[in-house]
Amino acid sequence: MFIELDKNSGVPVKKQLYDAITSKILKRELAKGERLPSTRELAGRLGIARNTVIEIYDQLTAEGYLEAYHGRGTFVAGEFDGAVPKDTLPEKRTGSSARRTRHRYRIDFTSGIPDLKSFPVKAWLRALKESIQEVAEDRLGYGSVLGYLPLRESLTRYLLRYKGISCSPEQVVIVNGTSDAMLLCALLFRQSVSDLMVESAVVSFVPDIFRMFGYNLIPLKIDQYGLCTKDLPPVEDGLIFCSPSHQFPLGGTLPIERRIQLTDYAEKYRNYIIENDYDSEFIYSGAQVNSLYQLTPGQVIHVGTFSKTLAPFLRLGYLVVPEELAPGVKEVQSLLYRRVNTHAQMALHHIFEEGIYVKHVAAMRKRYKKKMHCMVNALRDMFGDSIKIFGTNSGLHVAVVFPEPLFDAQSIRIFLKHKVSVDLLTDYTIHQQETCDTLILGFGNLEQNAIAEGARRLKEAVSELADMKGVSNWISTP
Amino acid sequence: MFIELDKNSGVPVKKQLYDAITSKILKRELAKGERLPSTRELAGRLGIARNTVIEIYDQLTAEGYLEAYHGRGTFVAGEFDGAVPKDTLPEKRTGSSARRTRHRYRIDFTSGIPDLKSFPVKAWLRALKESIQEVAEDRLGYGSVLGYLPLRESLTRYLLRYKGISCSPEQVVIVNGTSDAMLLCALLFRQSVSDLMVESAVVSFVPDIFRMFGYNLIPLKIDQYGLCTKDLPPVEDGLIFCSPSHQFPLGGTLPIERRIQLTDYAEKYRNYIIENDYDSEFIYSGAQVNSLYQLTPGQVIHVGTFSKTLAPFLRLGYLVVPEELAPGVKEVQSLLYRRVNTHAQMALHHIFEEGIYVKHVAAMRKRYKKKMHCMVNALRDMFGDSIKIFGTNSGLHVAVVFPEPLFDAQSIRIFLKHKVSVDLLTDYTIHQQETCDTLILGFGNLEQNAIAEGARRLKEAVSELADMKGVSNWISTP
Repeated sequence: MFIELDKNSGVPVKKQLYDAITSKILKRELAKGERLPSTRELAGRLGIARNTVIEIYDQLTAEGYLEAYHGRGTFVAGEFDGAVPKDTLPEKRTGSSARRTRHRYRIDFTSGIPDLKSFPVKAWLRALKESIQEVAEDRLGYGSVLGYLPLRESLTRYLLRYKGISCSPEQVVIVNGTSDAMLLCALLFRQSVSDLMVESAVVSFVPDIFRMFGYNLIPLKIDQYGLCTKDLPPVEDGLIFCSPSHQFPLGGTLPIERRIQLTDYAEKYRNYIIENDYDSEFIYSGAQVNSLYQLTPGQVIHVGTFSKTLAPFLRLGYLVVPEELAPGVKEVQSLLYRRVNTHAQMALHHIFEEGIYVKHVAAMRKRYKKKMHCMVNALRDMFGDSIKIFGTNSGLHVAVVFPEPLFDAQSIRIFLKHKVSVDLLTDYTIHQQETCDTLILGFGNLEQNAIAEGARRLKEAVSELADMKGVSNWISTP
Repeated sequence: MFIELDKNSGVPVKKQLYDAITSKILKRELAKGERLPSTRELAGRLGIARNTVIEIYDQLTAEGYLEAYHGRGTFVAGEFDGAVPKDTLPEKRTGSSARRTRHRYRIDFTSGIPDLKSFPVKAWLRALKESIQEVAEDRLGYGSVLGYLPLRESLTRYLLRYKGISCSPEQVVIVNGTSDAMLLCALLFRQSVSDLMVESAVVSFVPDIFRMFGYNLIPLKIDQYGLCTKDLPPVEDGLIFCSPSHQFPLGGTLPIERRIQLTDYAEKYRNYIIENDYDSEFIYSGAQVNSLYQLTPGQVIHVGTFSKTLAPFLRLGYLVVPEELAPGVKEVQSLLYRRVNTHAQMALHHIFEEGIYVKHVAAMRKRYKKKMHCMVNALRDMFGDSIKIFGTNSGLHVAVVFPEPLFDAQSIRIFLKHKVSVDLLTDYTIHQQETCDTLILGFGNLEQNAIAEGARRLKEAVSELADMKGVSNWISTP
């Protein structure tokens, strides 16, 4: 942790220290669960009194930024996201001592984490074991820059059957997750494309990565159904990033008329579409939606991930690229010598071939559907009809629109104080627009009792925020 | 495989097909072990007679470019690198039928592959199992952009003890191998640095990656001791890439006077040095050399890998960066959302903590030392004193200088014909210089009998090349 204090600035050292640490946590320079230096060490390094550091650590712990564990040190809060021990829940709201409150676990509604307890550890370990024993040891070398061929073959069969995507293994590249897929796209088009059109709210690594490579970003309007495809700007030879099966973070599924408008547009102006499909496996009613790739295979780069269907720690994702892009992709991968851990790829191939993958996804779809139901009910119990809930038909999060714009960066600390964390829509918008009325709430890794308790804490926090701004008349009291 | 034939060019279709496939293999667009389309499929796609394709596949198989396996298809040769079955070796040179010769395995002296049969499969599987069972399931999420903290801690202890590197876990980043470390460096300095000074012969992804990001490359002279540090050009605020513990590919270990010259130079001109240490674990006599990092920790980015000490398929490497660069590294990793498979990192941490890693490296050092001895003896047996052998004191390859410049890109097919593959020094030089007299021979993944047989085949191939140019008088006949 690198902190600089300016003792001549006139700002009290305590305030500087408080601001420095909270700013690092809010900007995520200090990650959840990261250990802070000991008070003795930090005081020594900064040349200030140890009591000053102790006081600030205590204050930040009380406010929920930090968590202190006796004998282990002080950590950025959030390490135990969602791992709510049964004996602390459901918590009696009356009679809980201050001490009890201070030490209860935070409930984490930040989005993007699937149910980690359901990861099929045994099946995965068996797949790791059997796959490494059944192959010739030359598989332990560097491997192909496109990924393990048998996996690309089994993935091709899966994509045809479950996503309607018809492609050859030469069009498939295995990568370290969706962010790595974006890096590959940014590298691939760095000389031929200058404009990236992108949904105006989007997972932050997409604008970050393309900006780093000098692309010009053009935000496109979205609504609760996803990308607004009428009146797209007349940009030629560009790239379009969108998530048609499940817009992130607003949650819409792009209707077929818009899909046709979008692909017609892309063809007319010679744009490639990056179709980000991060969780179309989890659609709860109606038929599986088709992929854009299926509509115009020559125009669409389809990006998928195993971070939601299995778990993020595996770092496994894939791209399907149009045939004409395949040689360029291979060239970039070869020049950069990019490859993915072959053992994980062999194991994934194994669980595909054994039918374990498809069964696991089906079981998780049922489980997540129940959690979604529980999430919506808990929010309705707390906020009645004063909120709008978007994106309830699929995936592991919802977007919740409140009647007042309460949620700016400063509001985070009120949520932390109430031992709950959330995502703000403003954090996902390209140009911060007037989106301070919307929270993004993920629940994939929370048990049902944690969701219910979390909704109660949300209401406490939202009530406090509304009180602070004097706009709490719409909140019902229990 | 994308092949275009021009039926109006006047060049016979057969020749076009032959040229297209061999060119793809030599340029490595077709990777070792890659499956070719069936003759039926390729003939259909190209609109030519199937017999033409069969004829070319047969010819390429006879010449050693391809390998055909009944019922499995035709593959780019080299898939079974070094996995020489015992019953075919040592091969009687008299009496072997043409058929036998055609189907014998290629012996692969290309560099960079460690002994894959020695990878500790059982210990690794146990580490994967125990590490995933002993951690809280939150480890199955995305994890830290710097890598699994307990691994960074155990690595820090290892580096202090075995490489004399003193650093904190905040200065360590786990990456997907050395090429990924180079990508990170190229990203990190993309705005502050324009010049990369680099040893004039170097592993090819280094110039490829930095060129892709627009760096200006300045080749630096090397000799058998490594980088020539006298008279370095007066480049300010640049980067220097070098491999002081074991120059790749020439094999030298940088003497202490040159190390001091180099670090003095770097400090004077404010250059960061990228110290590529890919195999200093395998030094066969004398003391372990120190790292450059140790000399000027503020100036050196130390890059290490587990591809040689364990195996490449794991995709595990690391950087140690100067303290002042740590925040920038973390920022780039965060913006790009770059992370490494946590399971492999947990397992690696486990085998560090159990003492397995250090024992494995010690055992492999003994094994490679024997192989090195065998390699040098086999070369001397074949070529006597007419060759110079560089880099015999460490690592898994040697550089062999012959009295004639026989080895240009065209010579590869003569080696393939004799069922042996090699690396050419010219393929590693930044500006192809007059380095056609030197072969780079890796032996890490070859058994001793394969090394001896391979040296015999090398002599056959070199004799044929020398005969073709009429300069074979220096080659003794047995």
